[in-house]
Amino acid sequence: MDVAHQLAVFKRGADELLVESEVAQKLARGKPLRIKLGLDPTAPDIHLGHTVVLNKMRQMQDLGHQVIFLIGDFTSMIGDPSGRNDMRPPLTREQIEANAKTYHAQASKVLDPARTEIRYNSEWSEPLGAAGMIKLAAKYTVARMLERDDFAKRFAGNQPIAVHEFLYPLMQGYDSVALRADIELGGTDQKFNLLVGRELQRHWGQEPQCILTMPLLEGLDGVEKMSKSKGNYIGITEAPAEMFGKIMSVSDTLMWRWYELLSFRTMDEIARLKRECDAGRNPRDAKVLLGKEIVARFHSPTASDAALAEFEARFRDHAVPEDMPEIALATAGAGLPIAQLAKQAGLVESTSEALRLIAQRGLKVDGDVVGDKALVLPAGRTFVVQAGKRKFARVTVN
Amino acid sequence: MDVAHQLAVFKRGADELLVESEVAQKLARGKPLRIKLGLDPTAPDIHLGHTVVLNKMRQMQDLGHQVIFLIGDFTSMIGDPSGRNDMRPPLTREQIEANAKTYHAQASKVLDPARTEIRYNSEWSEPLGAAGMIKLAAKYTVARMLERDDFAKRFAGNQPIAVHEFLYPLMQGYDSVALRADIELGGTDQKFNLLVGRELQRHWGQEPQCILTMPLLEGLDGVEKMSKSKGNYIGITEAPAEMFGKIMSVSDTLMWRWYELLSFRTMDEIARLKRECDAGRNPRDAKVLLGKEIVARFHSPTASDAALAEFEARFRDHAVPEDMPEIALATAGAGLPIAQLAKQAGLVESTSEALRLIAQRGLKVDGDVVGDKALVLPAGRTFVVQAGKRKFARVTVN
Repeated sequence: MDVAHQLAVFKRGADELLVESEVAQKLARGKPLRIKLGLDPTAPDIHLGHTVVLNKMRQMQDLGHQVIFLIGDFTSMIGDPSGRNDMRPPLTREQIEANAKTYHAQASKVLDPARTEIRYNSEWSEPLGAAGMIKLAAKYTVARMLERDDFAKRFAGNQPIAVHEFLYPLMQGYDSVALRADIELGGTDQKFNLLVGRELQRHWGQEPQCILTMPLLEGLDGVEKMSKSKGNYIGITEAPAEMFGKIMSVSDTLMWRWYELLSFRTMDEIARLKRECDAGRNPRDAKVLLGKEIVARFHSPTASDAALAEFEARFRDHAVPEDMPEIALATAGAGLPIAQLAKQAGLVESTSEALRLIAQRGLKVDGDVVGDKALVLPAGRTFVVQAGKRKFARVTVN
Repeated sequence: MDVAHQLAVFKRGADELLVESEVAQKLARGKPLRIKLGLDPTAPDIHLGHTVVLNKMRQMQDLGHQVIFLIGDFTSMIGDPSGRNDMRPPLTREQIEANAKTYHAQASKVLDPARTEIRYNSEWSEPLGAAGMIKLAAKYTVARMLERDDFAKRFAGNQPIAVHEFLYPLMQGYDSVALRADIELGGTDQKFNLLVGRELQRHWGQEPQCILTMPLLEGLDGVEKMSKSKGNYIGITEAPAEMFGKIMSVSDTLMWRWYELLSFRTMDEIARLKRECDAGRNPRDAKVLLGKEIVARFHSPTASDAALAEFEARFRDHAVPEDMPEIALATAGAGLPIAQLAKQAGLVESTSEALRLIAQRGLKVDGDVVGDKALVLPAGRTFVVQAGKRKFARVTVN
């Protein structure tokens, strides 16, 4: 396989690839690379944002490389020893195994499970012993540890950093030594830790791993990072219709970003699609393709077809016009009660008219009749709101 | 035993006793306290300076307390894992045992070996494991670690501090937990480490240990700390006559300091002796008493009597006058060739006169004829130098 082509696949959507020339050297040897991804064995509930790194792993897997799913069970069994974080009690061996299984099952929608190596870091961390831990800690200086962004901020702000927090990056780095990783993947926030692994491998006389960081995915609103707490996410276990509808609601700009980070189509295919849209094709077509691909991945092609059919039927049956006013309402993330929203969108003259309309079953959101006068439409989404037979608006709640 | 009396014994010559009220509480319970002293299991070659802490242990032992001689074998078996210090290769179990035995044999001149508990910290450090080490490291913050004087200086001066150096004070502190120490002894330079033990015991739900720091003993010159590299020391295995002679050569001021830190006489006895000297008794008598006590401790009463007899005979035979000029010569620690010294002390007119005198066997140092024209008298000592029959000077080389 062509090195340049592989490098292009590695770099697609990536934040940083360090050091590219070394990756090229590793690839030029023609042997499968060992690609490491470390995971917290906490109960997984994966959304599309989490799959960005998994997608990259899959792309590498498809190029013939060996991907390794590393479960950080060792430190999780210790819990947060500082006792400061009540939310992180130690996990039992059984909980960790169960979480790892669920994680693996969910990730297997993206990765090929048959070609994924699963490892637990207790395998080599426990045998280190107290003496091994001291030797490990000798490989890094306090000053360099304090260069890590969050440590630097906490130190400067007189926020306590417990000594054991310096041991975690070292243990993560030692995982790379134990696995003889060629490349380690992670989010941009993991860069420091990934570089520690690089350095420790050098200490152990290994060829240092390269690191590949992936950006955090923007959520449905196109602004904030996708996260459960922000409500701007798509869980990978969400029902097909729900998933499809949410994808159809994102902005065109965000759609192209998602194509880069979430689609398995080649960048060439995506570029062609984009050219077509630029030349006049309805971007809705591209959004449908993306929605179908993602629903098919996490459910099935059949479920994906059904979700599309249902989506289209709803809008066709309800005679939703292609063109309607596009309105954005700022609610500072709070969302808006339906009557207020209808008034602010210019669909009714007053909130009392809106409430009357609801009582008459004459107000619809995304084709569904609104029955609850107190319904609040959440921020971060776009809805097609219909008042009576003729009045429509595409309302984005911000 | 009276608490106030015991406190007075503890505090004699001490730098700091923290916290005195807690020590009083511990003592008031009437049970023997567990007194910890940590030792490096490097090859011991103890001088009087090292015995200051041992003397304190002995005083506590004589009050009925349990003293513990803790050999830090665990970290010594690791060596200096940073690899920066070639002088500290890891010690084998056998070397450590041998060194500990020698140390114990030497220390037994001061302590009662039958009542001394000897422990090795590998007993509880090894079973800690990697997980235990992380939990231990969670008990202390980076900021507080950097408050330690030498760490603070190195950090401020951009001198590297390896992360494992933060683990050593914690391990030393954990020793106190494992031993359930009531009091830990150490030099003034150990204060930070001793306080870590205090804090860790609190974490483990134990009554925190108190700490007792002893000053570093001034050497023969009365100025610098006693150390082998400065040449101002008395090794505890030195021959009786040598040891006695060196003690007789110290200044009166230093003698009283040594009484406080090295003698087993009570402070009442020492105060009485000092009053007698203040009233006109020759301080030489007090020095003889101190010399006899110390030689008897490290050799035997018989050897001590012999050393005194030999010392007195030499000076009597050579008719050294009681009064002679006292001269101090500054050599910045370099020492001085004997001919130069005789001239600068005013005993001869020129160095050539001195050399002639040496050829005629007419120049003596401490009663011994000088045979070697190139003899250099080392700094940090006081010598009686005699030129011909009549000229004497007591010369201190600085």
